[in-house]
Amino acid sequence: MNKWVYQIENMGLANEQCLLNETVFHNANGYIGIRSDFEEGYARGYDTIRGSYINGFYDIAEMSQAEKLCGLAEEKQTMLNVADTQTIYLRIEGDTFSMFDGTVEQSSRSLDMQNGYTQRQAVWCSPKGHRVGITIRRMTSFLLLPLFTISYEVEALNFSGTLEFISVHNGDVKNYCNPNDPRVAGESFQHLRPISADMKEGVSYLVTETVTSGLTVCTAVKDVLDCRNGSGVQEESVQNGHCITRTMRTGVGEGESVRLIKYTVFTDSLRYENCRQEAEKTMEKALSVSLEEWYRQQRQYLDEFWAQSALDIEGDDDLAVAVRYNLYQLLQSAGRDEHSNIAAKGLSGEGYEGHYFWDTEMYMQPFFTLTNPEISASLIAYRYSILDAARENARIMGHRKGALYPWRTISGSECSGFFPAGSAQYHIDGDIAYAVVDYYLATGDLDLMAEKGAEIIFETARLWMDAGNFHRGKFHINDVTGPDEYTCLVNNNYYTNAGAQYNLHWAVRFYELLSEAGKLASVAEKIGLRPEEIAEFKKAEEQMYLPYDPETGINPQDDSFLQKEVWDIKGTPADKFPLLLHYHPLCLYRYQVCKQADTVLAHFIYEDAQDLETIGKSFAYYEKVTTHDSSLSTCIFSIVASKLGLKDKAYDYFGDSAKLDLFNLHHNTKDGIHTANMGGNYMAVVYGFGGLRLKESGICFAPVLPDKWKSYTFKIRYRGSHIQVCVEKEKTVFTLEKGEPREITVFGTKYTLKDIIEIKR
Amino acid sequence: MNKWVYQIENMGLANEQCLLNETVFHNANGYIGIRSDFEEGYARGYDTIRGSYINGFYDIAEMSQAEKLCGLAEEKQTMLNVADTQTIYLRIEGDTFSMFDGTVEQSSRSLDMQNGYTQRQAVWCSPKGHRVGITIRRMTSFLLLPLFTISYEVEALNFSGTLEFISVHNGDVKNYCNPNDPRVAGESFQHLRPISADMKEGVSYLVTETVTSGLTVCTAVKDVLDCRNGSGVQEESVQNGHCITRTMRTGVGEGESVRLIKYTVFTDSLRYENCRQEAEKTMEKALSVSLEEWYRQQRQYLDEFWAQSALDIEGDDDLAVAVRYNLYQLLQSAGRDEHSNIAAKGLSGEGYEGHYFWDTEMYMQPFFTLTNPEISASLIAYRYSILDAARENARIMGHRKGALYPWRTISGSECSGFFPAGSAQYHIDGDIAYAVVDYYLATGDLDLMAEKGAEIIFETARLWMDAGNFHRGKFHINDVTGPDEYTCLVNNNYYTNAGAQYNLHWAVRFYELLSEAGKLASVAEKIGLRPEEIAEFKKAEEQMYLPYDPETGINPQDDSFLQKEVWDIKGTPADKFPLLLHYHPLCLYRYQVCKQADTVLAHFIYEDAQDLETIGKSFAYYEKVTTHDSSLSTCIFSIVASKLGLKDKAYDYFGDSAKLDLFNLHHNTKDGIHTANMGGNYMAVVYGFGGLRLKESGICFAPVLPDKWKSYTFKIRYRGSHIQVCVEKEKTVFTLEKGEPREITVFGTKYTLKDIIEIKR
Repeated sequence: MNKWVYQIENMGLANEQCLLNETVFHNANGYIGIRSDFEEGYARGYDTIRGSYINGFYDIAEMSQAEKLCGLAEEKQTMLNVADTQTIYLRIEGDTFSMFDGTVEQSSRSLDMQNGYTQRQAVWCSPKGHRVGITIRRMTSFLLLPLFTISYEVEALNFSGTLEFISVHNGDVKNYCNPNDPRVAGESFQHLRPISADMKEGVSYLVTETVTSGLTVCTAVKDVLDCRNGSGVQEESVQNGHCITRTMRTGVGEGESVRLIKYTVFTDSLRYENCRQEAEKTMEKALSVSLEEWYRQQRQYLDEFWAQSALDIEGDDDLAVAVRYNLYQLLQSAGRDEHSNIAAKGLSGEGYEGHYFWDTEMYMQPFFTLTNPEISASLIAYRYSILDAARENARIMGHRKGALYPWRTISGSECSGFFPAGSAQYHIDGDIAYAVVDYYLATGDLDLMAEKGAEIIFETARLWMDAGNFHRGKFHINDVTGPDEYTCLVNNNYYTNAGAQYNLHWAVRFYELLSEAGKLASVAEKIGLRPEEIAEFKKAEEQMYLPYDPETGINPQDDSFLQKEVWDIKGTPADKFPLLLHYHPLCLYRYQVCKQADTVLAHFIYEDAQDLETIGKSFAYYEKVTTHDSSLSTCIFSIVASKLGLKDKAYDYFGDSAKLDLFNLHHNTKDGIHTANMGGNYMAVVYGFGGLRLKESGICFAPVLPDKWKSYTFKIRYRGSHIQVCVEKEKTVFTLEKGEPREITVFGTKYTLKDIIEIKR
Repeated sequence: MNKWVYQIENMGLANEQCLLNETVFHNANGYIGIRSDFEEGYARGYDTIRGSYINGFYDIAEMSQAEKLCGLAEEKQTMLNVADTQTIYLRIEGDTFSMFDGTVEQSSRSLDMQNGYTQRQAVWCSPKGHRVGITIRRMTSFLLLPLFTISYEVEALNFSGTLEFISVHNGDVKNYCNPNDPRVAGESFQHLRPISADMKEGVSYLVTETVTSGLTVCTAVKDVLDCRNGSGVQEESVQNGHCITRTMRTGVGEGESVRLIKYTVFTDSLRYENCRQEAEKTMEKALSVSLEEWYRQQRQYLDEFWAQSALDIEGDDDLAVAVRYNLYQLLQSAGRDEHSNIAAKGLSGEGYEGHYFWDTEMYMQPFFTLTNPEISASLIAYRYSILDAARENARIMGHRKGALYPWRTISGSECSGFFPAGSAQYHIDGDIAYAVVDYYLATGDLDLMAEKGAEIIFETARLWMDAGNFHRGKFHINDVTGPDEYTCLVNNNYYTNAGAQYNLHWAVRFYELLSEAGKLASVAEKIGLRPEEIAEFKKAEEQMYLPYDPETGINPQDDSFLQKEVWDIKGTPADKFPLLLHYHPLCLYRYQVCKQADTVLAHFIYEDAQDLETIGKSFAYYEKVTTHDSSLSTCIFSIVASKLGLKDKAYDYFGDSAKLDLFNLHHNTKDGIHTANMGGNYMAVVYGFGGLRLKESGICFAPVLPDKWKSYTFKIRYRGSHIQVCVEKEKTVFTLEKGEPREITVFGTKYTLKDIIEIKR
């Protein structure tokens, strides 16, 4: 078994399985994402999602409110399926290849995470008896982001004759429509209209424009039929509407192979002034070297990526692959520019409409901050680019100052249709602030703070001052919703208040740090920041009200959490989970029942706000009332279990979570991967078992090894230095792989890591 | 000045004024309602609402939720504009009469509340110089509910010639569309489709069917041209689509009059098996006597109505008319059968889509309970008819038992599009229970309780047991919304909890009363009521948690009301009211600011739950944080001010409220009258100044006279006896007008009213 390859053999062809594989084997590079549909299509009546997406590329869709209250969002951005360039039909002596026809003698699909491509293989016998070996390799290039390639190789196993490839380039596409699941888009509107279609030097170019947002996208396709046997090629192109079909015929001898290489380039008007021109230039570049050269560069890119990001587990091979798969998906999903972020489903499907939520900052960005800070900086650049929109959003929500980030968005305005479980999640401000601080703690990059980060921190701090109020000596934040959406519009959500406190603390701190470094003036002037505001921030931080119940010794999730009845989780039939699909929200609000970690998440993220005893009691309490209906939950319980020394619990919670998409545990992976869950798994190892924390005082570790593992190893970049941490049974080995020596704290003891430190258990 | 007539002379013709008059002078009788549009139409480009409605007649409309959460209502009932039978064009020697053409020399509109019709008069000179006197009288019969008549009389003032009437009967109509105001329907969908059109014996019949609810309605129209001068009549009918136009020509001599009488009959499939047949029978009945006979019967009906319902104020004539107007509108609006209730806008317009809310029970029904208990019983019959729907609604909301009435509905299912300010208003259960109890206290009608009332009370009591929970010795009801929609999804809303307590109390009490009377068995068996449940009701009643804050000495509106910041009402620009149209709801939720009486309402309705000092302190507190953006607010403040002996305040609050629609104080009377406000005004006099209360111990009064009035008089029916109460400066006179002697309590002293009691101040 190759530890870099996730492979399945002779997979089933049931509709659900096909949908799942489209997601699991999708190709993406942070800019474009293409679902892994069968090139040749499916059986009649199959429901599949054939999609190609560009990160941050959207149209505006209506979002009619049943009751039109003041300020409610009435439109939303929705990520578009921009074109179909993955369709290729293969005809063999009059028979058309299909997995649902003839005889599939063998088949497999794989994702090679070292080489950066997916592969589908089949040995197929046509109804007329012609046997072929088919190998299809797909790649979205990490080097040339607009480039998507399909290499389609056919070997004639028992005949000589003619092969015909029919390659489709279709700009007349729509999004998938599933009106029955609130977690999926329900949009089947025709959002794209054709602008132009042309052929130039054998490349077809289709330009389409969105009907409302006014964005344009160009797709360019070039088919190259590589006849190694020297047979001639007959070619023919037909345009039908906004769809160009190219038919290529060639001879093949028994035992010989023919390969079609299909190059697609996607360019959009968000990034490029003239996307038609840009597509042509990019296609030229794509064709200027061989496909093999692109494969070589892809491999090189990934070698570097893994060298600084790998997380290896020895002693559980399946898990090791799953964890690697998760990190690979994060790499595939993360936007690389200020126009894009990481969508809840990455670029793998249309679930949540390509929207960006809080989980980028709290679940995914930590991985990049620790391993690829450039990508983390790019994620901060995105949030900075929509800071004006967040200010505008704060005004819509009635705030006189500050910025309130939208709960879900692409281009910056709020796309949440139900504000009690959406816009009311003010904690997103704290989350974004946290991620900015985290980046600073990992990199020490005060310049980025002066340029972008501090402005975000100051404006979110201002928002807290307007959203909250002092009451009888405490600072309260009323009528917000915490991460746990089973309780909405509460007062003093523990997680929110703890986050606001941290945000305010760092607003004060950055004021000092930038001031000391002589870098404060430009940002302070720009936003008119007054020293009295800093004093107010400090006062609110100090007087922040964090709910505590002396009777139980826990931090209640909010002011009234404990006065509600406890939901009978054990007595609830298994088919009633997730509860949100089976109970009216108001029913859930009335009970002590949590969809996901909320206070427990706060006890991880803002651990210094509470003593260990309270954290322990709270953990035990919330364990009993949490359904983990969200994929963001068990990883956090795992981390806090680790913190509390509950090794077995930590392991069990982690195990529940790590294979979510590969095993479709939430039954909705067809709509896309769960990127936040993937990041959460990473955190469960590095923050959980590894005990890593980034604090202003430095980086700390408290590594433990789950009993079932032989060892695990992870690599991080801390203030420019590359550090490997290998946790074994008897010892933990810290290795400085590159860069300056750094101080590290392990189990409370400070060390200077110059080369290698071995710490015995 | 005739104290029974509300009249305006030479009214303006601005669009807004026309819209207002359509509402103010509409004709209705609890079954049908017709807006008072100009028969001849308006000037080009005018936006008017031309509507005819049947109480309880609806279609289903889509109500798409921006986020499709489990259990949210996705469709709603909407009251339909069913036909246009009010259009009549008049041609005089080639000129078509229009208020916007020629010269209007004089005009007036009036509502005669003693005779039960509206009248429009004009002296008009056509562009060619023909002067006519026009008198149009409209009536919806209180005797024959489906009947609507227009008497259109024209006098030739300065010419002899030909008059032409063109009378339209149009079944191809739609509802009005105003998508910009959340308080109005936004539906312009074509909800009716033609089924049949026919003429029989000069009567045109149009049958239409709703596209979704499957209800049908028939309208029948008969035009009778009454030529007193003996001129012949030329008639011609033309059908165009689902519209029949009848043209009638006749000669007229100078000084002579011609009158067209247009009879319309509305019948619907909710009430009648075959509405086409029923329309024919009803039209026969309508035509069997003269129009003057219908006028006579209408007068007789109203004489009886006023004899038992009048509320007269001496010393403020305008106010006296306004108050009379309000009672007349209540009479016009109240449904008379189990299919219908009282819509928020009565039958006068499409605001709130003809939906029934809690304000029927809390604001309008008290008037009927005290004066026309038969109508009150009919309103209870309506709520009983939708009890199964309320049980179903409770299941949708996740309750295992009990019935939860929908927040807004026509046929019984929830039509609220935003549940935090809709379905979450659980107090509607307490409100309906209260109205049932109130009816019982006023009438002593235990039979209706055995038949219908008690089942409602038991099922709503059960709902509280499931919605609330015991916590540390108190019964809590979490996550509900009180009447004040500026604070949503709160815990232990004082009003809600006090209402639940009263509801539970009466569930126990009716169990005892029916048991003693040997009338319990059938209802108890039907719903499987167990004695242990009664014990639970009692326990919850006793342990009901009613928020009290020792520091301020008030009852906070809910658990967390006082910890919020106080909204700066004085500092808010006048054009920002009502706040709900200018601030995001979440912004309002975060402040101490009330749209309307909430705890103050509870202190009126459930006054025995609290001591006077707390009520007084609370009143003073809520005065400062209430905007009265709702038309249901000031009347309640007036009542509680009266209770507290704050005579001037009581008068001021009352004055703000009584002329709401006549003066269009809320700028939306065009969408319909504010029926609840009208009932509230009645209560402000009778409960407020009169100090009337219905308790199990009997009926009490504590009358005071506002300084500006000479006296006021009201009439009530108490346990079958007709009582008149006349409050003068020096004394109050109680007169038993009819029926058995009754015990009454005045200022805490018991009297037996046999004939007349005079109580000196």
